[in-house]
Amino acid sequence: MKVVVHIDDAAQWQAAIAEALPEATVLTSDAPASERANADYLAVWKAPAHLLQEQTQLKGIINLGAGVDYLLKTPGLPKDVPIVKLRDAGMSELMADYVLYGVLHFYRSMDRYAAQQPNAQWQPHAVPDKANWPVGVLGLGAIGSYVASALQQAGLPVLGWSRTPKQISGVRCLHGEDGLNELLNQAQSVVTILPDTAATQHILNAERLAQLPKGASIINPGRGSLIDEQALLDALGHDGQPGHLRGALLDVFHEEPLPANNPLWQHPKVIVTPHMAAPTPLNDAIDQVISYLHAFEAGETLATINPDMGY
Amino acid sequence: MKVVVHIDDAAQWQAAIAEALPEATVLTSDAPASERANADYLAVWKAPAHLLQEQTQLKGIINLGAGVDYLLKTPGLPKDVPIVKLRDAGMSELMADYVLYGVLHFYRSMDRYAAQQPNAQWQPHAVPDKANWPVGVLGLGAIGSYVASALQQAGLPVLGWSRTPKQISGVRCLHGEDGLNELLNQAQSVVTILPDTAATQHILNAERLAQLPKGASIINPGRGSLIDEQALLDALGHDGQPGHLRGALLDVFHEEPLPANNPLWQHPKVIVTPHMAAPTPLNDAIDQVISYLHAFEAGETLATINPDMGY
Repeated sequence: MKVVVHIDDAAQWQAAIAEALPEATVLTSDAPASERANADYLAVWKAPAHLLQEQTQLKGIINLGAGVDYLLKTPGLPKDVPIVKLRDAGMSELMADYVLYGVLHFYRSMDRYAAQQPNAQWQPHAVPDKANWPVGVLGLGAIGSYVASALQQAGLPVLGWSRTPKQISGVRCLHGEDGLNELLNQAQSVVTILPDTAATQHILNAERLAQLPKGASIINPGRGSLIDEQALLDALGHDGQPGHLRGALLDVFHEEPLPANNPLWQHPKVIVTPHMAAPTPLNDAIDQVISYLHAFEAGETLATINPDMGY
Repeated sequence: MKVVVHIDDAAQWQAAIAEALPEATVLTSDAPASERANADYLAVWKAPAHLLQEQTQLKGIINLGAGVDYLLKTPGLPKDVPIVKLRDAGMSELMADYVLYGVLHFYRSMDRYAAQQPNAQWQPHAVPDKANWPVGVLGLGAIGSYVASALQQAGLPVLGWSRTPKQISGVRCLHGEDGLNELLNQAQSVVTILPDTAATQHILNAERLAQLPKGASIINPGRGSLIDEQALLDALGHDGQPGHLRGALLDVFHEEPLPANNPLWQHPKVIVTPHMAAPTPLNDAIDQVISYLHAFEAGETLATINPDMGY
């Protein structure tokens, strides 16, 4: 069995996979082309097109993250080769911590205290009843469901939304256009954890942002494409124009790294983080890769990506 | 039964207590002196000395908060009148949310991202394993125990410290000088939730702050007196001198409101919040006051304050 790994710090993954599968040849994509061709499996994150194109006998591709949008758009992706993705790998907990931080930031008025501090302004703000502070979660896949449950366990009412109907204990699960309207009309904070597909592109556009209650906030640890950045800037207010949104915690952007001249960097209501909400914890992820390789080899039925759906 | 209430917004408390106890006379401390004298019970937060001194037949004092330091230092506090305090009243959850926010702020490098943002610097920082990021909690009373458990449930190793030995599931409970040393040598973040007593005054002084690992952080939602402010400023670094601590989230201060010229306001490593970590939720608190009044009247044994211990 030959496995080729492409990701930042691929050497760590190579070593760990080789140790767990001593019978396998495990290479990184830095290996000479002659060696890395004819792989049985690719384990990749943002692989270059040539790495996909030069393969002739692939049996499976393991996407080393939860988002498959980049892989599915890569020219030369072979059709009919099954693709699996890291479904969680500890990412849910990292994501839930990031989201909980963001929700508490707005719920506990930490944005207001940050604005007061340079003026030495000692002004407490009342803490609303959690019962009156619903949070909306767009996207109820493995990670989104975990995040929704974590928020619910923190005592906040949670409205979840997904393309197809879901059920999550303690979470009001909505779907479809009516469900999205209901969520947007109520949520004090909206968390976007949807995959990047044609259907989710700019799902938060100017019209939908306008539906949110005055003073609502946005937390996007999902994909940059989910939000129309110009519409978000308008909703936050800029250049002396007031906006009806209170703030945003953003981890992902249309272009990454976020260009230095993008106005989000200097917007007083925006916190920019550099796509760090849910890095893949290496040990958990490697365990999953190895179990995927075993399952592929054993001919087991795997939950593979549906390229037409985009996730 | 005559009850006199002294607190900000006393009218709300007066109305709620009067409604629950229609047979009682419930006054605020704004009532004429002749009316507010001879009360059976005081329900007070930071009451003026004269209100205590003019009472002649008090049967009990209800402290409308968890900290009794102010009450115990008030001249004219009658001896031998039993004192009870609001032990929790929803404050634990508010406190735990505040502390969890602060811990996540440092654990997830949100302080570093905040410093990078004005420079449009896109630089992710690795998320440490939670197993390698212990948090210390000084003070394991009702609220401190709740906070310690909440941090433990968030997946962080928790070292708790109290004057006398305690046991909390999943928390390494320490006490005494040796225990304090062990905690300070390990904690990546130290949370101070001790009462204000002679023994806790400046418990975090220069020497103890120096014991913390380089890059550790301080979260103080407890009492301003627990930390030597000048020693904290030195440990954080100022005026071009580097410090070995990474940052502090402070809700309480030696003097409140924090004076505008206090250097903590403008320190780049400090977040100042205006004593808002755990405001008393009114409904929960009033329920407790009423049950205390019933218990006093029924002659029940109550868990009263020990003025010599200070809590």
